[in-house]
Amino acid sequence: MQQPISSSANPQVKLIRKLRDRKARQRNGLFYVEGLKLVGDALERGGYLHTLIVCKELLISNFGQDLLRQAQEKDVPILLVTPSVFASFALKEGPQGIAALAEQAWLELEQAGAQTGLWVALEEVQDPGNLGSVLRSLDAAGGRGLILLGEGTDAYHPTAVRASMGAIFSQKLVKTRRQALQDWQKASGAHLVGAWCGEALPYRDYNYPEDVILLMGSEQKGLSPEVAVMCDQLVHIPMRGSVDSLNLACAASIILFEMLHQREGRKEK
Amino acid sequence: MQQPISSSANPQVKLIRKLRDRKARQRNGLFYVEGLKLVGDALERGGYLHTLIVCKELLISNFGQDLLRQAQEKDVPILLVTPSVFASFALKEGPQGIAALAEQAWLELEQAGAQTGLWVALEEVQDPGNLGSVLRSLDAAGGRGLILLGEGTDAYHPTAVRASMGAIFSQKLVKTRRQALQDWQKASGAHLVGAWCGEALPYRDYNYPEDVILLMGSEQKGLSPEVAVMCDQLVHIPMRGSVDSLNLACAASIILFEMLHQREGRKEK
Repeated sequence: MQQPISSSANPQVKLIRKLRDRKARQRNGLFYVEGLKLVGDALERGGYLHTLIVCKELLISNFGQDLLRQAQEKDVPILLVTPSVFASFALKEGPQGIAALAEQAWLELEQAGAQTGLWVALEEVQDPGNLGSVLRSLDAAGGRGLILLGEGTDAYHPTAVRASMGAIFSQKLVKTRRQALQDWQKASGAHLVGAWCGEALPYRDYNYPEDVILLMGSEQKGLSPEVAVMCDQLVHIPMRGSVDSLNLACAASIILFEMLHQREGRKEK
Repeated sequence: MQQPISSSANPQVKLIRKLRDRKARQRNGLFYVEGLKLVGDALERGGYLHTLIVCKELLISNFGQDLLRQAQEKDVPILLVTPSVFASFALKEGPQGIAALAEQAWLELEQAGAQTGLWVALEEVQDPGNLGSVLRSLDAAGGRGLILLGEGTDAYHPTAVRASMGAIFSQKLVKTRRQALQDWQKASGAHLVGAWCGEALPYRDYNYPEDVILLMGSEQKGLSPEVAVMCDQLVHIPMRGSVDSLNLACAASIILFEMLHQREGRKEK
């Protein structure tokens, strides 16, 4: 087997570190995942692995050895590195000696099939942790995918990937603009429900269709008026305390699990 | 009026920076808040301000001027600093020239009145952003306060304070240990509901009492068996995707807003 790379100036190792930067991620179409859980999710849920990165001295668990075998069986290229090289790009403390470069998988709205099933669209989401937590809750609620609208943070930001707890591999991803969403909505008949901070129907009083896109605005500004007018329905979460809004991922989760509850209630009938 | 402090080696300025550290916060019983919104919340909701910190060159909005006047009327000591000194401790980019040292306000379980109203208890919560988001959702759901159980992150961590969006001032705070909670539970008759990842009643199928403490486990380990057995009821959130758990603050929000929904439903009857 190959000798592990021992220089952190190696071009492949430099690429790994560069992927912290959004522009480098876009240029290469890759992103970085780290740890037994995320690499395992990528292998299990069909994420396209470009390279598996292994530090044998650190990869001690049976589960880790098993992931390495799985990757070898799937002919994923393997990059062996020394502990100090692994430490040069590791995000976690106490790194587990396994990481990967995975291929980004963006879809066009037209290909994504976003007119069916449960979707979330985030307008100009700023915080990658929020984006990842929304992906995680969306997956848990039986969702299909996430649409990112306008300028916002990157779904493949390391913090978003980690916060998604693997949902980055199971949920479809679309990046688009308001006008394109509007044109597609007219053509596809997709049903849009917007979460609105002002006057709107309480979120529990709406009968959500099976095929629905939940639109959430940015952390600072909420949904823009331009996007709000595109919605078939605006809903709000009634609040009883002194704060006037919820964390974005918490608000999305509350509405998503109401949607899930209604879906399952219908199935039982 | 006093001259602004221009040396970042000034002892008061050094104290401000030291409050990033948990031990220094505990020793001084103070915490640091920054920005128009949080300082405004502290003044409005009765947070005890130890010192208001102002940089006149940066404090340009009318709202900011108004906060300064309010603090002066309440005889809050005011520390004037130069822009470079303000920058030496500012957490935000584009600082607004206003910050404060506020007094921590921990209560004992016996004083807190946690046997009435809606409370959350977090066991060994690790992430201060999660802690802050739980406080925010708890406040929005009409909650009374938060109980921190065992070793975990600090409610007065700057990230927790910021994520709470001011709920750090409106919610009561208790720090205790499992045994003390159990003793108090027996004496007070408090009703405990635990969020459980395994087999448990679906969270929508339980009739939550008005006076209830929702217990949530840590991000990594969930609720400990020792705490789970103390609960009058365990509930779980049914999930339909490939991820096997939700973000802590998202999970808490989903259950809290079910509780709120039930409370309001009862009122209508």
